[in-house]
Amino acid sequence: MINKTIIFALNSSKELAQQICDELGVELGKCEVKHFSDGEILVELGESVRGKDVYFIQSTNKPVNANLMELLIGIDACKRASAGSINAVIPYFGYARQDRKAKPRQPISSKLVASLLERAGANRVITMDLHATQIQGFFDIPADDITTLPLIGQHLKEVTKGEDLVVVSPDHGGVVRARRLAEMLNAPIAIIDKRRPKPNVAEAMNLIGDVSGKTAIIIDDMVDTAGTLTSGINMLKEKGALKVYAACSHGILSGPAVERLQKANLEEFICTNTIDQTLNQEKFPEMKVISVAPLIAATIGAIETNSSLSSALQGALEEDK
Amino acid sequence: MINKTIIFALNSSKELAQQICDELGVELGKCEVKHFSDGEILVELGESVRGKDVYFIQSTNKPVNANLMELLIGIDACKRASAGSINAVIPYFGYARQDRKAKPRQPISSKLVASLLERAGANRVITMDLHATQIQGFFDIPADDITTLPLIGQHLKEVTKGEDLVVVSPDHGGVVRARRLAEMLNAPIAIIDKRRPKPNVAEAMNLIGDVSGKTAIIIDDMVDTAGTLTSGINMLKEKGALKVYAACSHGILSGPAVERLQKANLEEFICTNTIDQTLNQEKFPEMKVISVAPLIAATIGAIETNSSLSSALQGALEEDK
Amino acid sequence: MINKTIIFALNSSKELAQQICDELGVELGKCEVKHFSDGEILVELGESVRGKDVYFIQSTNKPVNANLMELLIGIDACKRASAGSINAVIPYFGYARQDRKAKPRQPISSKLVASLLERAGANRVITMDLHATQIQGFFDIPADDITTLPLIGQHLKEVTKGEDLVVVSPDHGGVVRARRLAEMLNAPIAIIDKRRPKPNVAEAMNLIGDVSGKTAIIIDDMVDTAGTLTSGINMLKEKGALKVYAACSHGILSGPAVERLQKANLEEFICTNTIDQTLNQEKFPEMKVISVAPLIAATIGAIETNSSLSSALQGALEEDK
Amino acid sequence: MINKTIIFALNSSKELAQQICDELGVELGKCEVKHFSDGEILVELGESVRGKDVYFIQSTNKPVNANLMELLIGIDACKRASAGSINAVIPYFGYARQDRKAKPRQPISSKLVASLLERAGANRVITMDLHATQIQGFFDIPADDITTLPLIGQHLKEVTKGEDLVVVSPDHGGVVRARRLAEMLNAPIAIIDKRRPKPNVAEAMNLIGDVSGKTAIIIDDMVDTAGTLTSGINMLKEKGALKVYAACSHGILSGPAVERLQKANLEEFICTNTIDQTLNQEKFPEMKVISVAPLIAATIGAIETNSSLSSALQGALEEDK
Amino acid sequence: MINKTIIFALNSSKELAQQICDELGVELGKCEVKHFSDGEILVELGESVRGKDVYFIQSTNKPVNANLMELLIGIDACKRASAGSINAVIPYFGYARQDRKAKPRQPISSKLVASLLERAGANRVITMDLHATQIQGFFDIPADDITTLPLIGQHLKEVTKGEDLVVVSPDHGGVVRARRLAEMLNAPIAIIDKRRPKPNVAEAMNLIGDVSGKTAIIIDDMVDTAGTLTSGINMLKEKGALKVYAACSHGILSGPAVERLQKANLEEFICTNTIDQTLNQEKFPEMKVISVAPLIAATIGAIETNSSLSSALQGALEEDK
Amino acid sequence: MINKTIIFALNSSKELAQQICDELGVELGKCEVKHFSDGEILVELGESVRGKDVYFIQSTNKPVNANLMELLIGIDACKRASAGSINAVIPYFGYARQDRKAKPRQPISSKLVASLLERAGANRVITMDLHATQIQGFFDIPADDITTLPLIGQHLKEVTKGEDLVVVSPDHGGVVRARRLAEMLNAPIAIIDKRRPKPNVAEAMNLIGDVSGKTAIIIDDMVDTAGTLTSGINMLKEKGALKVYAACSHGILSGPAVERLQKANLEEFICTNTIDQTLNQEKFPEMKVISVAPLIAATIGAIETNSSLSSALQGALEEDK
Repeated sequence: MINKTIIFALNSSKELAQQICDELGVELGKCEVKHFSDGEILVELGESVRGKDVYFIQSTNKPVNANLMELLIGIDACKRASAGSINAVIPYFGYARQDRKAKPRQPISSKLVASLLERAGANRVITMDLHATQIQGFFDIPADDITTLPLIGQHLKEVTKGEDLVVVSPDHGGVVRARRLAEMLNAPIAIIDKRRPKPNVAEAMNLIGDVSGKTAIIIDDMVDTAGTLTSGINMLKEKGALKVYAACSHGILSGPAVERLQKANLEEFICTNTIDQTLNQEKFPEMKVISVAPLIAATIGAIETNSSLSSALQGALEEDK
Repeated sequence: MINKTIIFALNSSKELAQQICDELGVELGKCEVKHFSDGEILVELGESVRGKDVYFIQSTNKPVNANLMELLIGIDACKRASAGSINAVIPYFGYARQDRKAKPRQPISSKLVASLLERAGANRVITMDLHATQIQGFFDIPADDITTLPLIGQHLKEVTKGEDLVVVSPDHGGVVRARRLAEMLNAPIAIIDKRRPKPNVAEAMNLIGDVSGKTAIIIDDMVDTAGTLTSGINMLKEKGALKVYAACSHGILSGPAVERLQKANLEEFICTNTIDQTLNQEKFPEMKVISVAPLIAATIGAIETNSSLSSALQGALEEDK
Repeated sequence: MINKTIIFALNSSKELAQQICDELGVELGKCEVKHFSDGEILVELGESVRGKDVYFIQSTNKPVNANLMELLIGIDACKRASAGSINAVIPYFGYARQDRKAKPRQPISSKLVASLLERAGANRVITMDLHATQIQGFFDIPADDITTLPLIGQHLKEVTKGEDLVVVSPDHGGVVRARRLAEMLNAPIAIIDKRRPKPNVAEAMNLIGDVSGKTAIIIDDMVDTAGTLTSGINMLKEKGALKVYAACSHGILSGPAVERLQKANLEEFICTNTIDQTLNQEKFPEMKVISVAPLIAATIGAIETNSSLSSALQGALEEDK
Repeated sequence: MINKTIIFALNSSKELAQQICDELGVELGKCEVKHFSDGEILVELGESVRGKDVYFIQSTNKPVNANLMELLIGIDACKRASAGSINAVIPYFGYARQDRKAKPRQPISSKLVASLLERAGANRVITMDLHATQIQGFFDIPADDITTLPLIGQHLKEVTKGEDLVVVSPDHGGVVRARRLAEMLNAPIAIIDKRRPKPNVAEAMNLIGDVSGKTAIIIDDMVDTAGTLTSGINMLKEKGALKVYAACSHGILSGPAVERLQKANLEEFICTNTIDQTLNQEKFPEMKVISVAPLIAATIGAIETNSSLSSALQGALEEDK
Repeated sequence: MINKTIIFALNSSKELAQQICDELGVELGKCEVKHFSDGEILVELGESVRGKDVYFIQSTNKPVNANLMELLIGIDACKRASAGSINAVIPYFGYARQDRKAKPRQPISSKLVASLLERAGANRVITMDLHATQIQGFFDIPADDITTLPLIGQHLKEVTKGEDLVVVSPDHGGVVRARRLAEMLNAPIAIIDKRRPKPNVAEAMNLIGDVSGKTAIIIDDMVDTAGTLTSGINMLKEKGALKVYAACSHGILSGPAVERLQKANLEEFICTNTIDQTLNQEKFPEMKVISVAPLIAATIGAIETNSSLSSALQGALEEDK
Repeated sequence: MINKTIIFALNSSKELAQQICDELGVELGKCEVKHFSDGEILVELGESVRGKDVYFIQSTNKPVNANLMELLIGIDACKRASAGSINAVIPYFGYARQDRKAKPRQPISSKLVASLLERAGANRVITMDLHATQIQGFFDIPADDITTLPLIGQHLKEVTKGEDLVVVSPDHGGVVRARRLAEMLNAPIAIIDKRRPKPNVAEAMNLIGDVSGKTAIIIDDMVDTAGTLTSGINMLKEKGALKVYAACSHGILSGPAVERLQKANLEEFICTNTIDQTLNQEKFPEMKVISVAPLIAATIGAIETNSSLSSALQGALEEDK
């Protein structure tokens, strides 16, 4: 495998890429990304990719457009340099929330991004915990979406051992995810129900289900400004929750998010490194960051050896215990 | 408009197509669909479509594959006969539940269907209450998804006047829909929470939220065999609901569904005619069927006059009151 | 070869697929096709296809639309599961007779089907005795059409040894095929010439050429309801043919076909198993069914070993003698 | 129509294009085709085509590759100059005989040509008497194939008034065409049956059907070197035909064709001007050339007015009587 | 025209878009571009575009990736909202200098950008003074490249009236452009010839041609950091030029450019507003900015009225005198 | 490599193809190209290409359209015969000068040719000294453009040893190329500047830079009719050049070119065999023809062994010294 596989790190995921290479026992590929003073980007491959299976590791978090463009330009360079296959590993897939026309005349930007990746020349996409699993269908190329929920569930099992748990969905769209985590933890679920009782009346937050006397775990796929999350935490406490944990796959943590989380009445905030958390951890060392490198390394391994991906992932999780 | 628009009815939606033509004041286009003894289908257009805007009205309910093939062949015939534009009106979009890889190595059949329609030559698709709104993004052509929820909400408002309502989602995936109906009816929501407490133990049905002493309205996008629905009704009754209504957009009603609904402890079963209900109504005359013809007619009208679709739909709903 | 090749049987060709596997000495791949009560189909691959060369064996005879859809969905599943290549083996290619616009505003459904297969993700198509050889050109992917005529000719040579033969084309479009079989049997040809002498006068059947005192062999690519065939047989007898054989590649045998063939004044009815004949043979055990499994197995073998297909087929025919 | 339609003549069909313009009452569009000394071609449009419906009139007869390239380059120029639609009128469609893989590893050049035309940017193709009607299916854009047989039949009816006719197909592939002409003339058919009795024995020419004492009409879609045709004429005479006419749509007449036809024992040789016959008529003034301009003009008229093409063609034929 | 045309301004070209609307006498279309705190962009069309011809005015200068993404998302929104046609007006086309593989394994990013625009759904592209005119060929859709050279030439003619001129190309690649401007001004040309006499020796600047005693005009398509330009000015002065003007179409002016230009020994620095110069003009009010709005307005006018673009541009230039 | 690589020679490059095979130590593939009397071409592959990497060697010089069509048809045949990859080696890429819209309503024929090659099924293109390097971007498939300048430079270094050199660009567009050669030879450059001083006055030829007392080397990418070249030579002599060499990559040499070169006041005319020079060399034996076979062989070798192309070319040049 080593001879025909090259893993390139682009700017958003350099540390994760290094971890993946360490897991696989390969060297990071040589690839220079230049940002010129006029804002243009140039990706120069530092070694021959002729006939090789190339993997770019690049999340499309902030600066999302530059990160996306790095990836597209890198793919173009590989295509023109006769790469054998071009695999875009996008642990955090930006624009995922623009996945439907929520209102008339809106774009479906995550479909657009999928189309752009295909047009540039990607042969396969690997993502993690897509905001909506339907986004897989936006691709005509193989798109493997890897769930980080077992990693998060495993961690929560350990830290909440012996407690009386309830898993809470922070909104109506996240109930399926909450139910899946609840099953891992053998817990009931509750749902935060935001509604506007009458037009021109402020939105009210309501709880469906019961958290009183329990340890509540709020689970979401991503946490952005953390505004909704902190109101949710407060409400759970008011409704009698003894402890609150908050967990997500993707810690976007834009704007005042880190500050809010530090002040929140939380036992622990848990996320993964699909988005690089190095800077956030400096400011907020109590946050728990779980590495997804073993899952991605297992995925690349399965692809390169043409073996079953589901078995490989199962193996990676068990090894991790 | 009349001169450049042709509406063709294929086999699954002949009555609905006639209603749409009546709304628009146009004649149904001439088009013969032959089914040969070897199972093959031939669609013959009975009039020139050269330069015309063609609308096929065809739901892809059972027999789903034959209905889909009628539509694809009809599109091919129009393309080769130089139609100006080809619009597929698919009030019920079959295969919508196969919208993601639920398990490894599964197809995403609703994306496949979208791709087949585009490949055949469709220029636009009009659907109603797609199972997942993300399916719009499976298309590269304009895909307008029309919601029937206001029609259902309007009817329920009238029949439940003065009662104390709660809207119930029959599963975790339907909570957003329930919330939207609840807002129309100014009611709280509850969720039926099916879970498996331990491996190898039968699935338990749980209720999150409160229905006691209330009129419960179960809302779903589609009702297929009605098994889950009838268990849900029973449970709501056990939990103290005084009355139960069940409503959905798409009455698939396959297998024992009609019989189950007739025996269920229901005030009323409500659906629309996105799927033709003529045969079901003969067996089950108490069911309430709401016609979507005004919404589709308004949509076609907006397209043909290049005016705003959202305004046109708003108009159709108000007129309908 | 065994390690990288998987052969999947879909519903129309299960027995043929097993024969092919037996010829090649491989196990049939695991693949479950579910038909739900609402008419939808789900194809679930029971083993990893990552990097493998997949062959689906599926004729698109009756129920043609469901069989086609099984194939398209299976292809989609393989594409998304990262199959190395996806090969559609379609021994009987349905909709082949809709291969041109016979009248204005008709579809060209066999081109449509070709486009759908490519769009779904097929990388190669293997067919047998296409109704028109031009259909190969409907594909942009490699399309290998295998002729069964040598198998049929070999059988006829044996059963008609020493007789004075004439090969009869049942219509104007089949003369080239009749000529090819006649060359194998070193016989002259005759043509059944249907014409309408004046408008509103019944079609008359005429014979061009001479069959008197001879053994006549009617050869066609497919026999559907067998109506034309049985009138042809009667006419040949009237014109003095001593014996009549009828042979075709594809025994569609829809509607009253089997009954008609049983009553016909025929020495033998010969077809192949491009369409499964198990049920027909129960009713009509005198029919001769020739297996195409050796030809398909040789084709797959040539593809998997990157060797010449024409040599492989020649080998298969000689071995079969 | 005049304002939005432009008809351009390329080099192979200048006279026909002028006739079409005369029929339609429009001026030929200005368009210069340069052939440079290094063999390259440049097509320069002499007037704005922005938003116009452009029709190129260009048969792809000899020099077939240069003629095809003129057409492709002209289409590219129109596409980049924002033409409203680009219509390729190809009365004689070269490479039509390469319409299937006759032997292993052959190209299907007529599909290739269809794909090239689409890729260059053609929106519609209009052809006449395609060698195989299946070639229509090689296109994904509308492809209207116009038959010249009624024009030929009309002429033959006049010149053979009162004679006892038989229509002869010169080979096995042309029987359907012969049957169609025979129906127009209310005549029987016969077939020239070439076969090789044993390997390494010269091909023998045989006649199926009867021509003795009759006026025989050989009909083919194209006549190339006229070798087969002249042997056929001789044989018909030997078999007792009193007179022989030969007719075809496309007079390719390459190599010794004109000389052979002049010496042949023929009443008349009839073809159309799908291929320009100006030079041939100088050498062979007895040949009858029927103009297809009225049919093409009617086709363009129907397209530009979005009216039924089949009615327009019917009208053109009747007017012509 | 007013009824079917909508002009939308995106963030990089708001002022230019307003000028174009003023020229055309239409209102700017309503369109809101949101930049979220996580870096994602949402383009919301504020009015119906159904059946309309939409023009986005957006240069892809710095922030180039965000500006490009705004444009792509806007195009996606219009496509899904059934716009009649989508036209991307990109006065400054970013990434244009990455137009070939200058070194092995480099991308061709300007081709990538062209492909992305087409994939998103653009139907036409309008650019100005592309870095290489070959970039037009990167598009399969009509791509009209408008030259600003006549505007610049006109201005220079006025300000240098009566002087002895020489036009200078700042590098080997710009000689054709210099020659074209020289012809407008009836002047000779000179070329700045940078070369490295031996490896590891500093690059030397040489002048081919003569500027002594003359007014030198350096012309380039774009000025980025202005480093090369200011060394060129110095050298021309050393070689005896009396006065130096510098002109370009695209004033990128990144990094220290404005400061350098202010200190340079220049009569005047001239550019156009293909890139918005509002901020630069505040710092450097002596710079001359020529508006391209009349040229773009004439182009849109020609497209919307289906009239000749070359005539329209000629008219715009003459009117401007 | 030998087992999976096949090199086919088409008509324009038979000798070069043989040289390449000799370099690589492989046999030329069997492939027959038939030209029929009606001008059509048929390419028949004489051996199985199933799974093989096929390389066609074919320049598209005169007869350019037939040569291009041979290549396209050959590619189609390989695609349908299941070749593993199809590589078009086009040492001289015809239509390269039509690489932009030089005037309104012109085609971009070299982009058209690129699109046709891709559409036919080419997977990679290898060219030499493209007229504009931007043409690489006309392809979406890998396009490797190999420069012959080092071969030409090496030869010139030897024959001009010790002379005082100046490299001359024959026009404004070729200055970059002249600069590159000048760097190899450590020489200054000069430019021939053609201009029209006033409208309706004959074009004047001017020299920018100094050639007096030097050996001048005119370098161009191609020489067609040699008219401009011979006037250039005369002018250089008038300006005092002692000796003149002329060199180019592609010796098109159409029309009077050879005669002009023979009469020209030239030390030597140098070109490569990207275009076959066998016939020209018979008439003009003094011309120097440098073979590009080592460069192409090295390129094919690098592709087939998945090694770095830039290293392979470097190696080929050094070996050649």
